[in-house]
Amino acid sequence: MDRRSFLKTSALGGSAAAATTLAAPAIAQGNTTLTMVTTWPRGLAGVWDSVERFTNNVNTMSGGTLTIDPKGAGELVGALESFDAVTSGQADMYHGADYYWVGQHPAWAFFTAVPFGMTAPEMMVWYYAQDGMALHHELGEVFGIKGFIAGQTAAQGGGWYRNEIKSAEDFKGLKFRMPGLGGKALAELGASVQNIPGGEIYQALSTGALDGTEWIGPWSDEKLGLQEVCDHYYPAGFHEPGAALSVGCNLDVFNGLSAEHQEIIKVAAADAHQHNYAVFIANNGPALQRLKDGGTQIHQFSDDVWDAFGAASKAVLDSSMDDELFAKIRNSVDKSMAATAGWVSQSDGTYTAQRARVTGA
Amino acid sequence: MDRRSFLKTSALGGSAAAATTLAAPAIAQGNTTLTMVTTWPRGLAGVWDSVERFTNNVNTMSGGTLTIDPKGAGELVGALESFDAVTSGQADMYHGADYYWVGQHPAWAFFTAVPFGMTAPEMMVWYYAQDGMALHHELGEVFGIKGFIAGQTAAQGGGWYRNEIKSAEDFKGLKFRMPGLGGKALAELGASVQNIPGGEIYQALSTGALDGTEWIGPWSDEKLGLQEVCDHYYPAGFHEPGAALSVGCNLDVFNGLSAEHQEIIKVAAADAHQHNYAVFIANNGPALQRLKDGGTQIHQFSDDVWDAFGAASKAVLDSSMDDELFAKIRNSVDKSMAATAGWVSQSDGTYTAQRARVTGA
Repeated sequence: MDRRSFLKTSALGGSAAAATTLAAPAIAQGNTTLTMVTTWPRGLAGVWDSVERFTNNVNTMSGGTLTIDPKGAGELVGALESFDAVTSGQADMYHGADYYWVGQHPAWAFFTAVPFGMTAPEMMVWYYAQDGMALHHELGEVFGIKGFIAGQTAAQGGGWYRNEIKSAEDFKGLKFRMPGLGGKALAELGASVQNIPGGEIYQALSTGALDGTEWIGPWSDEKLGLQEVCDHYYPAGFHEPGAALSVGCNLDVFNGLSAEHQEIIKVAAADAHQHNYAVFIANNGPALQRLKDGGTQIHQFSDDVWDAFGAASKAVLDSSMDDELFAKIRNSVDKSMAATAGWVSQSDGTYTAQRARVTGA
Repeated sequence: MDRRSFLKTSALGGSAAAATTLAAPAIAQGNTTLTMVTTWPRGLAGVWDSVERFTNNVNTMSGGTLTIDPKGAGELVGALESFDAVTSGQADMYHGADYYWVGQHPAWAFFTAVPFGMTAPEMMVWYYAQDGMALHHELGEVFGIKGFIAGQTAAQGGGWYRNEIKSAEDFKGLKFRMPGLGGKALAELGASVQNIPGGEIYQALSTGALDGTEWIGPWSDEKLGLQEVCDHYYPAGFHEPGAALSVGCNLDVFNGLSAEHQEIIKVAAADAHQHNYAVFIANNGPALQRLKDGGTQIHQFSDDVWDAFGAASKAVLDSSMDDELFAKIRNSVDKSMAATAGWVSQSDGTYTAQRARVTGA
């Protein structure tokens, strides 16, 4: 199927669904309850923290007049059915990673992560002080969604390998688990890319069905036990330099809320973004140290591997540039990222390098 | 005067003031208005943005039941009288930079910036996911203050110089404007450190009364016209690697608020921290480019200068280590910073360096 016609059809379908939404939040004694489906197993470490932070803050700040009722994946609908559940009005909102919706429109990827894209701090700049949030809403409007980023895993690691990666050639035929656009880029390098759920990764590595995997970062990866089935870990990766999570509210439901409740959702989402970033970083540092102490070998990819990642990432992103909204958002991201990196590398970058050199820390 | 006895006296004075507070927020028709003094001229670019963001969000999220009434410096009390105004109950809260209160207790510096301290993202980790906020409250308790960081200038530049700095020797006798602990560190290098208000810097540089100055960053510095009176700019500095701004509420006033209003203040402050960081970074990148285009020469300090900054900063921080709370907070900061930097340098740091190399951006 031709990509452009697929996207147009999909977008129209989304609009139509929004127009006929049956969404009606539960209202009792003047208090509103919004049902929130999520793409996460209830309680998943790190990611579920942002769900709890968001829902608790909304409930408390509204004095109980607005309650969010979060559902783990599978409790009301399956993880990847969350988007349709919200556009159809079956649920009022979702919490998830917007790049799960690239089948609806490839530009959703920009609101989670794209290969060679923004770090978490760069995302803050683009989203809150430049065009990011407005573009999120422009894309959401097509599908009847009002979205706000509301979580952040920070940089996802380059992943786990049973054998060390010495050159880009080593990806040829490598059975590797990586979802999304990053996975498409690895496929360009000749990898046999597989998408299997988190719960099955450990076994696939044990049996040799996989040669390696990415998951999230040292904290989450350690919980999955990946250090028991792979000896080699690469802390830096190209595929998700910062992964934002989002809440997406049915647009009619959102527009029906009071200005007070709308603002509470908006600010609670922003707080969850910053807080979740902090939680992941706070846990990744000590986890990396434990992995090292436990014998995991830590490596960085060589320049030629990074060159190959860069070329493949560009090819993957270029392939969607015939979509006007995708191109508009990508150009906005690229412009923001270049300006931010130019300043941050010369201020924070130089400072942290000198601090490390001077203090030996 | 002996430093320790001064601190003890000061802390006791603060407690006494808090115990006899006369604070009583204005309440009309069930709605509460809190008077907020600030350490900023009304409308000061960047910094005042965080005041507006915070107050607007509180007002909107509370549906008008809690209103913050911000006062520019001098409107109710002078900038540096804000702390005493709040502990004495003359005002309900302040918005300012907590390192202005190092005369009350040196540990206040950690909640804005210390030399060779945390970057803005590192502050997020320590404050929101580790001990930072709890330590802020522990220090505040001594003075009857409930504080939350609520703004962030991001890294402050190394500053402006009429002549290039080629070695640490060049600081001997240099007439330089730098407030706070950074200024004390420069004095250790032999600089003649001067603290003059922002409005007088331009003229002092024009007349040769100053040889150089730090201010905030390219965006703010450009507005002051520093590029007209200095040819040399150093984007990276050691003195304020990330400068948080805070709201501090009279503790009795805060404790008298509803759980709903307390949470609204807490979350609005966190949102203002992230948002203000984004605003400063978004504006610094383009401003640096304009400065370059306008002929400003951009430099980085040499390794020997950074070595001297490091030694002097350590000496300044060491000199307060006989205060127990200062030592407790400094150790917490150092531990957090080392763990965060260890992970971030290997993930984000390697990624952004490779992205810059590969894309040439």
